[in-house]
Amino acid sequence: MRSAHPRRPGRARVEHHPGSARTPSPLIPEPSAESVRIIPLGGVEEIGRNMTAVEFGGDIFILDCGFQFREEETPGIDYILPNTGYLEERRDRIRGLIISHGHLDHIGGIPYIMDRIGNPVIYTRKLTGMMIKKRQEEFVQGSQLQIREVEMDEAIKLGNATIRFFNVTHTVPDSMGIILETPWGDVVFTGDIKLDHENGEPSEEEHQEYSIFQKRNVLALLMDSTNVWQPGFSIPESTVYRTLENIIRDSKGRLVVAMFASHLERLIRVVHFAEQYGKKIVIDGRSMRTNIEIAREIGLIKYKDDTVVAVENMGQYPPERIIILATGAQGDEFASLARIGNKTHKYIRLTLSDTVVLSSSVIPGNERAVQKLKDNLSRQGAHIITYHASDVHASGHGNREEAAWIHRQIKPKFFIPVHGYHYMLRVHADLAIQEGVAPKNVAIPDNGSIIEIQKGEKMTKLSVKAPSGLRVVEGHTVTELSDVLMRDRKALGQEGFCVVVATVDRRTGKLHKSPDIISRGFVYLRDNKELMDQTRLIIRKSVEVSMRNPRAADLDAARDDLAESVARFLLQRTLKRPIVIPVIVSV
Amino acid sequence: MRSAHPRRPGRARVEHHPGSARTPSPLIPEPSAESVRIIPLGGVEEIGRNMTAVEFGGDIFILDCGFQFREEETPGIDYILPNTGYLEERRDRIRGLIISHGHLDHIGGIPYIMDRIGNPVIYTRKLTGMMIKKRQEEFVQGSQLQIREVEMDEAIKLGNATIRFFNVTHTVPDSMGIILETPWGDVVFTGDIKLDHENGEPSEEEHQEYSIFQKRNVLALLMDSTNVWQPGFSIPESTVYRTLENIIRDSKGRLVVAMFASHLERLIRVVHFAEQYGKKIVIDGRSMRTNIEIAREIGLIKYKDDTVVAVENMGQYPPERIIILATGAQGDEFASLARIGNKTHKYIRLTLSDTVVLSSSVIPGNERAVQKLKDNLSRQGAHIITYHASDVHASGHGNREEAAWIHRQIKPKFFIPVHGYHYMLRVHADLAIQEGVAPKNVAIPDNGSIIEIQKGEKMTKLSVKAPSGLRVVEGHTVTELSDVLMRDRKALGQEGFCVVVATVDRRTGKLHKSPDIISRGFVYLRDNKELMDQTRLIIRKSVEVSMRNPRAADLDAARDDLAESVARFLLQRTLKRPIVIPVIVSV
Repeated sequence: MRSAHPRRPGRARVEHHPGSARTPSPLIPEPSAESVRIIPLGGVEEIGRNMTAVEFGGDIFILDCGFQFREEETPGIDYILPNTGYLEERRDRIRGLIISHGHLDHIGGIPYIMDRIGNPVIYTRKLTGMMIKKRQEEFVQGSQLQIREVEMDEAIKLGNATIRFFNVTHTVPDSMGIILETPWGDVVFTGDIKLDHENGEPSEEEHQEYSIFQKRNVLALLMDSTNVWQPGFSIPESTVYRTLENIIRDSKGRLVVAMFASHLERLIRVVHFAEQYGKKIVIDGRSMRTNIEIAREIGLIKYKDDTVVAVENMGQYPPERIIILATGAQGDEFASLARIGNKTHKYIRLTLSDTVVLSSSVIPGNERAVQKLKDNLSRQGAHIITYHASDVHASGHGNREEAAWIHRQIKPKFFIPVHGYHYMLRVHADLAIQEGVAPKNVAIPDNGSIIEIQKGEKMTKLSVKAPSGLRVVEGHTVTELSDVLMRDRKALGQEGFCVVVATVDRRTGKLHKSPDIISRGFVYLRDNKELMDQTRLIIRKSVEVSMRNPRAADLDAARDDLAESVARFLLQRTLKRPIVIPVIVSV
Repeated sequence: MRSAHPRRPGRARVEHHPGSARTPSPLIPEPSAESVRIIPLGGVEEIGRNMTAVEFGGDIFILDCGFQFREEETPGIDYILPNTGYLEERRDRIRGLIISHGHLDHIGGIPYIMDRIGNPVIYTRKLTGMMIKKRQEEFVQGSQLQIREVEMDEAIKLGNATIRFFNVTHTVPDSMGIILETPWGDVVFTGDIKLDHENGEPSEEEHQEYSIFQKRNVLALLMDSTNVWQPGFSIPESTVYRTLENIIRDSKGRLVVAMFASHLERLIRVVHFAEQYGKKIVIDGRSMRTNIEIAREIGLIKYKDDTVVAVENMGQYPPERIIILATGAQGDEFASLARIGNKTHKYIRLTLSDTVVLSSSVIPGNERAVQKLKDNLSRQGAHIITYHASDVHASGHGNREEAAWIHRQIKPKFFIPVHGYHYMLRVHADLAIQEGVAPKNVAIPDNGSIIEIQKGEKMTKLSVKAPSGLRVVEGHTVTELSDVLMRDRKALGQEGFCVVVATVDRRTGKLHKSPDIISRGFVYLRDNKELMDQTRLIIRKSVEVSMRNPRAADLDAARDDLAESVARFLLQRTLKRPIVIPVIVSV
């Protein structure tokens, strides 16, 4: 649903458009000499469009550059971007964009934003870099990106700072945390994060990884808050692997495993289990094929060529040896699983012995689509396994106790929760205080909040904010969101509209003929002759009264009166509020 | 959000309108003499609008009469009703409407449907009857309902049948199951159902209640499937009561407890705990006040007059003695909790020492609204307790193991799962088979499926269905849903529309003046002069070419061409597909 944009064939181009509601840049003081300035530009009033700027010693470092899929509140919009106005006015100080991992809420903004901020060098790990490049290929005239691949043990000198990295557990390989060394201690950014653990005891690898912080002096921590409001520990991915392994080993019919193509770690495991148990993989879905190819290319996964079979050759193998990897577990209308569900898939029809594993949770907003998908699949007789009844999915974001453990390893002096709605940040802030951060050293940001730590001692949130109006992508265009447009769309989607056309004789002030009424999305006027006739009377009366009035020389007033009369009448008769467009032609 | 209709002040009236898409009634054979016919008319392809007809021996019995709130798929609609076409054509056989309990998905259709089916007598328990009456008062010219209150141990003779009842556990008092005695055994309908249990062992009362089935011969079971896909046992309501009791006892500041007003059992408990711990109750929300008054009136709850204090007098008591019962836990825009959240509540402003308990889960589709609510509440500093981290809510519908236990008590020969999406019914059907029902004796219905059990031996699903087109309430009107209208609204809500007005000289075929372009919800045309100018050129060209063509005598063709040219041009330039309305005035 949200990730598919079938209306955009071929490669996209990007046009920047100021928008009518362009927010004027506020006057923002320069950072004082001995301060670290931290500005979350996106991702702290929502899930998605993560981007944070860190500025000190005259240098700006940007952490991540994501986008967000559209919301109920932004109908017709494709994506929402972080507002980069602050950066655009300070391009000359930008020393680099550092990307934690390759998910769209961390890299999705790149094709739309890089030009605006002067196309800085991107620092990230190999897989993430490849994912960024693949995506850039979808854009015509996309900037030539400069991507500098980093190693985990590297220390990168940028401007006056040194940047280091650490491994974090998430759902895509090469996920990393970022350490910015400042004169007053480290600014640590975790990116998306969870822990590998067994019954709440973090693994040896996690202990090892976080042990680096024993010798570090952490000034400030910026950390993912997505699931911190959930109690306890999240299900570790290892449990999911065990469950999937058992399902794959024991399957007696065809198995369809549906998940996000971005869930690369899990995809790799499924391919591995398939080989281990002598089964064949059918990859159905372009993004999944692309991601598996990337993973193979850089050696993250190794498999024999004949493990993957083309969907049209699937019939050459007994059903119990077939595993179909499919996209569309969120109910996306154009994904392969939807086509399997509604029987429009070119090659796959379900049978009673097939099993469909939905290896994902349901993203809020997609419930209806997923329900419809499950209904369609089960109408064909397939057995469906979901994460409710079986551990076939785990979130990539840690729960409260994982966050608490990480806080205890990193031991920051200052804390800024990021990645989440305000409520989630608030819960995370409370947790940080419980784990020992002084309450005055915790700041809950909004998008654009300017937080400064002076001399490593004192945290303040400036009263002025960086520009934070919503920037959106719609079609080719990047623009500021128009509230009027959104309000109109919401109204139209519920109430429809009604165009009334009156041709008036300028000499007599009488209507030339019976007025025309054209409506869409309102009520079924064609079936409601009485309402049509009465509306025509209202139109005639309104226009003829207006024309008798001397101010009617100005047709605008007559139009306003007409729209108001018709709207009032229709509301009273139907309880609906269509947008009424009055057209008066004077001849 | 979904339950509030602020646009409807005062009492509603109901107009019936055929709609353009009126489904012609199919030819349905008469039931054979020795058969029981069961027709789920709503609630088996969705959650909501539950209604089932049972017909035998020339009598029709109707079980429940609910409605459903609108879906993503039905924008602008208020409610969706069961299609009662089958009943309308057989009014003379209807012997009664039996209502299992007072929730809107079981009684909401009554004001819209009773007239259409001949206003049969309603049989139900006292509280349910009062809830139905209260609701009917909101309608002008609502039918005078005939409600016959039943006792649990009564046996009602209706037509040739005897009807009996049994107590079931749900979230509203007076919930009951229904037993229709037929010559071939009982048709048992559970209504909404869960079990009271302790760690998976049903309570003594449940054992007692279901023991009646030991001596009965159950022909067919129709049972709630809402949560049967969830493993294990659901949280029992008793656990929720314990949690709420602890929270109420220990609260050191004001407590806001938000829940559905329909969750009457829990409301009663909260009032009870308040008295027990010497606290005062503030009731904020009309539906909650109404429901508590009804419960008090019929003796379901007793409390001292001074336990409830008016919201404006709340300040006379110390904060730790105040419990505010509020509606709006689903994020409903106009409910009291939303007004507390956005600081527009006349009397209540949150402080750092206040706690808000959201004693409900989130209905799919409301996630964003609830997230916004939580963000607003936590911005004011209130501590929020949700069902994720604490047992402050439990569903009213039992999980898989509860369903299994009930199946073992009732031991039906035939089984028809109801109340749920197809996937849920399918899971329930599999469960019934696992519990011993023969696979050929299980039928998964769609809305309108006609299922017959012949001579108590053989179940068939007729190839013909009862009318099942969607009936909807929009404003005052009850009508059949128009697919065209829904499609237009969805398009308008994303893409907007564009009216182009060309005045053409009928002699020269040239435009009289520059064409007008009026758009709403499309893109911000006013800011895009270039696009406006180019569109005007396209309009001029299209119309003038059309007018040169001899077929232009017919302006319709010219209009079609104009709409198509403009739509194609706008799509290419903006990637948007606004609905284009061409207006050509020939003068």
